[in-house]
Amino acid sequence: MNAEILSIGDELLIGQVVNTNASWLGEQLSTLGIPVRRVTVVGDTHADVLAAFQRAWEENDVVIVTGGLGPTHDDVTRAAVCDFFDTPLVQNTDVLEDIERMFAERRRPVSAVNRDQAMVPAAARIMRNTAGTAPGYHFNQEDRHFFVAPGVPYEMHGMYEHHMLPVLRAQFRNARLSETLLTTGIPESTLSDLLAGIATLREDVSVAFLPSPTGVRIRLTARAPEADAARHALTVVRGFVETRASEYLFGSGTQTLEEVVGRLLTEQGRTLAVAESCTGGVITDKITNVAGSSAWFERGVISYSNESKVQVLGVDKTMIAEHGAVSNAVACAMADGVRRSANCDIGIATTGIAGPSGGTAQKPVGLVWIAVSTSRETLAHAFYFGEHRVRTKQRAAQAALDMVRRQLCSLPPVPSILTETT
Amino acid sequence: MNAEILSIGDELLIGQVVNTNASWLGEQLSTLGIPVRRVTVVGDTHADVLAAFQRAWEENDVVIVTGGLGPTHDDVTRAAVCDFFDTPLVQNTDVLEDIERMFAERRRPVSAVNRDQAMVPAAARIMRNTAGTAPGYHFNQEDRHFFVAPGVPYEMHGMYEHHMLPVLRAQFRNARLSETLLTTGIPESTLSDLLAGIATLREDVSVAFLPSPTGVRIRLTARAPEADAARHALTVVRGFVETRASEYLFGSGTQTLEEVVGRLLTEQGRTLAVAESCTGGVITDKITNVAGSSAWFERGVISYSNESKVQVLGVDKTMIAEHGAVSNAVACAMADGVRRSANCDIGIATTGIAGPSGGTAQKPVGLVWIAVSTSRETLAHAFYFGEHRVRTKQRAAQAALDMVRRQLCSLPPVPSILTETT
Repeated sequence: MNAEILSIGDELLIGQVVNTNASWLGEQLSTLGIPVRRVTVVGDTHADVLAAFQRAWEENDVVIVTGGLGPTHDDVTRAAVCDFFDTPLVQNTDVLEDIERMFAERRRPVSAVNRDQAMVPAAARIMRNTAGTAPGYHFNQEDRHFFVAPGVPYEMHGMYEHHMLPVLRAQFRNARLSETLLTTGIPESTLSDLLAGIATLREDVSVAFLPSPTGVRIRLTARAPEADAARHALTVVRGFVETRASEYLFGSGTQTLEEVVGRLLTEQGRTLAVAESCTGGVITDKITNVAGSSAWFERGVISYSNESKVQVLGVDKTMIAEHGAVSNAVACAMADGVRRSANCDIGIATTGIAGPSGGTAQKPVGLVWIAVSTSRETLAHAFYFGEHRVRTKQRAAQAALDMVRRQLCSLPPVPSILTETT
Repeated sequence: MNAEILSIGDELLIGQVVNTNASWLGEQLSTLGIPVRRVTVVGDTHADVLAAFQRAWEENDVVIVTGGLGPTHDDVTRAAVCDFFDTPLVQNTDVLEDIERMFAERRRPVSAVNRDQAMVPAAARIMRNTAGTAPGYHFNQEDRHFFVAPGVPYEMHGMYEHHMLPVLRAQFRNARLSETLLTTGIPESTLSDLLAGIATLREDVSVAFLPSPTGVRIRLTARAPEADAARHALTVVRGFVETRASEYLFGSGTQTLEEVVGRLLTEQGRTLAVAESCTGGVITDKITNVAGSSAWFERGVISYSNESKVQVLGVDKTMIAEHGAVSNAVACAMADGVRRSANCDIGIATTGIAGPSGGTAQKPVGLVWIAVSTSRETLAHAFYFGEHRVRTKQRAAQAALDMVRRQLCSLPPVPSILTETT
């Protein structure tokens, strides 16, 4: 039992449009427990579309085709469908009524090309379109399904919900549960060592590591005859991760680190102020993406010049002269300064060398000092994030937010992986 | 002469990751004049990967494979490559040095799984990775090319630029020139009206409008037997755009608005300070992405609370009480305040309602006041950016930077399209 998603359109091949339809459908089918074996994209060329139909329908039980059903000359899907299933076009009066009603609602006359969209393959069950003019088609052979839907995302989504989903749900009942655990502050290879054995822990749970500059996601997927069994299997593997990698684990699913920090601050009734030099606003940008962050975020200071560090944050001029702006002392003074002047519970600060220039042997490009200040203590740590300016900003912002998370969770101030090796 | 793009990874099939690599590569290859016939996505399954290799290499002259080269157990691409080209793994000392240097820079030990990434297919030319640990492979048979690159987008982009592009460009020489013109402050439909006739201006130049939340790009593509003729054709169409849409046109190619603003400030020897409320750091983040911005950017203040507007920017408390924080008066006072305290030539400020809550009938979610202050005058303008929090931040930041560009270029302070309709 496999599925293929087949996307049609030159605009996808030349990169003018990103294929979000395939990822959306992939997620839907996975949720139903239908494994997607392949995604194929071909252009608006009759022979290519026909060849792709052939191969997809030979090798899979479910095929979902999207795109190429529009009224313009470059849309070839309908003709290819008729050839492939050897069926003529006939007028469908329901579809014609749908089209006429839609144009009447918009006070526009129905054009000939739109009227032509009511001509559909005779052998197909029709999937009516509630959001556009092109109908979809469903071909059914025993327990196998070939669906054809328009490429406009919201039209396709509606057709999936109303027509494809009921058909598929009736047929495929098996439990497949997924969960994504979010880590930060540990590289993929180290995390993989720390979690050695996870891949073979349970036969019914597969594990994937998905790295990014701001952390590694761990995707767990359980398959079982019953949902309860799949849920139990997931719990076992999640427990393994929680035990071995707890300090790096900050959330799950689509959560962000800034949301987690915001929730912790809200729960503890504490407030935050931010002083950024090298990160230049990435931290405050992330924070203010969280709806309601004004409840716990008071202000940010982007102190790019030394003068602003002195004037706005109260950093001692002689301290900058003595230690340099990128230093333990100045990071701490910035974090203290912004916390005090904003009258907040926690202050964080970043100061570093984002590059490409400005590095020295002692202070190379990529070095960032990050400090966290509370009324009880101020701690700073040096990180080395590499030579890419924008990624260094992203990595430093994530590390700064993680230091706040660690402070709020009473964890060691920096990842133990760093504590061991630096 | 055709190309196939082959993306590998379960995360793509189940829709956890959208396949932006395929669209990026599709655009690159199209720019070179190499037609992409198919995009195929398969999971991390040896047999499926091998079958996809077979088919792609049978039917195409250029195959680009991305993904599945990471150090963890779920990455199967390397083994499939060795099977497919019937070649063993050997250690590559250049790659090992790259990996060791990268870890040394980050002050971390090299783990065994990372060291294993220096084991590469013997028959491949190696594409070294400047941004990560996994090297890429290039197999060349006469004029046909099979490339394998990691799936991390920035690693893959670097490998394309440094290794694949030179190979492909040397082989595919036909005069096909492209240029992308960048506009902001004007919606696609209005721009399209303003440039009516552009599509049929020259038979040898095709035109595409590519809209995004921060502006519309116009891609011009000229095809001609000789490069000179293509270049001339491009000049004619570019001239048409420059004449009709000059005030909206801020650059070309991969330039950003913040780079253009930085260049103008540098040329005019002027400096900038920023006060952000609703945009929360997006403007300073964009600015500090520009290398060398410390020469013209002095500081930013993310004045999320009213207290910080009063305390750091010197906004009059009674003014906030009277007009509200989201108002013409407060925007101007913030821009004046940050310019004066930072002792800069230009100050910009944003204050608005990013949502989802906080809107009223008079001041709906999406309303943003943006002000630009110089020693001669301070001007503010209201924009309505819609209900999506993150997009409103992005749009407002772009509009603020565009107001600075307009100030520096002595253009009207707000787009004429807005001046006419509001």
